[in-house]
Amino acid sequence: MKRKLAIGVDIGATTIKAGVVEFNVHAGKADLLSQRKVDTLALNGPDSVKRQLFSVVNELLSEFKNDEFAGIGIGTPGIVSLDGSIVKNPPNFADWKEINLRKIVNDEYKLPVVIENDANVAALGEAKFGAGIGQKDFLFVIWGTGVGGGIILDGKIYRGPHGGAGEIGHTTIDYKGHLCNCGNRGCIESYIGQRYLSERSRLKLQQMPENTPPSKIIELVHGNLDLIEPYIISVAAEQGDSFAKEILSEAGNLLGVSIASIFNVLDLRLAIIGGGISAAGEYVFDEIGKSVQGRVLKSTKPDVRIIPAELGNTAGMLGTASLVM
Amino acid sequence: MKRKLAIGVDIGATTIKAGVVEFNVHAGKADLLSQRKVDTLALNGPDSVKRQLFSVVNELLSEFKNDEFAGIGIGTPGIVSLDGSIVKNPPNFADWKEINLRKIVNDEYKLPVVIENDANVAALGEAKFGAGIGQKDFLFVIWGTGVGGGIILDGKIYRGPHGGAGEIGHTTIDYKGHLCNCGNRGCIESYIGQRYLSERSRLKLQQMPENTPPSKIIELVHGNLDLIEPYIISVAAEQGDSFAKEILSEAGNLLGVSIASIFNVLDLRLAIIGGGISAAGEYVFDEIGKSVQGRVLKSTKPDVRIIPAELGNTAGMLGTASLVM
Repeated sequence: MKRKLAIGVDIGATTIKAGVVEFNVHAGKADLLSQRKVDTLALNGPDSVKRQLFSVVNELLSEFKNDEFAGIGIGTPGIVSLDGSIVKNPPNFADWKEINLRKIVNDEYKLPVVIENDANVAALGEAKFGAGIGQKDFLFVIWGTGVGGGIILDGKIYRGPHGGAGEIGHTTIDYKGHLCNCGNRGCIESYIGQRYLSERSRLKLQQMPENTPPSKIIELVHGNLDLIEPYIISVAAEQGDSFAKEILSEAGNLLGVSIASIFNVLDLRLAIIGGGISAAGEYVFDEIGKSVQGRVLKSTKPDVRIIPAELGNTAGMLGTASLVM
Repeated sequence: MKRKLAIGVDIGATTIKAGVVEFNVHAGKADLLSQRKVDTLALNGPDSVKRQLFSVVNELLSEFKNDEFAGIGIGTPGIVSLDGSIVKNPPNFADWKEINLRKIVNDEYKLPVVIENDANVAALGEAKFGAGIGQKDFLFVIWGTGVGGGIILDGKIYRGPHGGAGEIGHTTIDYKGHLCNCGNRGCIESYIGQRYLSERSRLKLQQMPENTPPSKIIELVHGNLDLIEPYIISVAAEQGDSFAKEILSEAGNLLGVSIASIFNVLDLRLAIIGGGISAAGEYVFDEIGKSVQGRVLKSTKPDVRIIPAELGNTAGMLGTASLVM
């Protein structure tokens, strides 16, 4: 019997990841047989992105030249048209606007192609092969540069009537709060997105009284506070640094505000948290959990669960490959 | 040809409304042929509520004794089990807990019975016969004593995995904000629900400088500020009172914060606002609309629409009757 293979591609603003995925339908399992990575070159325009995309797919197809492929699934930033063809205005991609990426890839490889939003396919990957196995309804949160998300309802991606659902980073936690990039005030992203967290840590460290024992963060960035990023904060926290822990706990607490609102509106109980910061250790999840539990409606409280994603940055490839199977 | 009739019942904390509804399937129309109202007597316990419910249904059945009925649809407060039978903990109903209302009514009348949450059936009523005709996806908000809601996705009620969806009153607009009845801080309900709005108006009026021209509200409550309620504020606003308008505009602006968050998460563009305050005049809707438009993601802004519900307090009866057709 032939193997069931598909190619899963995860286009990010900086790198394109692509993998060959083998599905074992009976076991409900997916294996990543091989994976490649290239720079996206998103700022060089769509032609450049197309060339980079073809180059990784070509490499994989020649590595598996004796196999047949069910198709190519592609996760991308931006809004994807409901029919899974057109990618609209992916942020940080130069000169993109609206491009029928499905047609471009299908013309090149004569294989079925499905395009889907990157957060949505990561959510689907976790649902099918990761932390969400056996869970029909949950909120998936990607906490990294920004705060994104996907909503899984009854085992399927909830895309919304225009394909734009899941923007949990732009739920307001304080209507008089910080100005967000999106133009709104008080979006959770403007409190816990990468830039904000780093900036906040830098300022707090600069304002520390002289006799405070120095945070591990300062050592990790060799004294250059401009190098602080959430990953550094989480490494320091892992090493027991109390300042770093406090920063992340505060952030977890705030993320819980948004999650609780969404739980109340959608009647959900489970959130799976992925993205860079999900490596930050158990206490962040505890903090988010405490916050959500403290805020949701009473009948929901006992069932609230906040857990880390399991697939890391392979969730997108696995999720998107599963769409063509 | 026989008429297509159903009974729609709307159980509220203070009154039970019931009506005979005729459906014209081809015209997509529903007519309320007759309606009755009794006190719910919710504080006297479930037996009392049952007796009151039977009394109105009996009256309607004897008025239409030559007709056949497709069934009885019942909207109630509280969470309704996903199979449409058990009503769980309706607020302000004494000794209720969990009761299989479907069985009770079905045993009595030997007719098909469907139970559904009151906000959900009102949303469905507006979707099928009111302001939501032709709209497949929208948020329905009931703004009155509290702030409730229903979500219509793809023409159907989104009930959530446990039947509890739509609690938009308990979305947080300020994580450090007012303490809400639910135990959370900063829920929109704790800013614009009946009690809060009335209280806020009273305090503001008491603190007004002596030489300010008096608000119409004072006249409408004959000087007794304890009698202020949202209806009074909206009457004063209708009469051009600038203080009343300001109170309602502020409230509309805050409601917009919650709606915008939900629009971003669910990719919605339309909100239909019902409940007591929806009689308050166009400027409240303008205010909500401005707030939502200012806050949602850019691609959504041009399509945002905030409109009043059309069916008033018949939405529940029509929506719930439609469930048995």
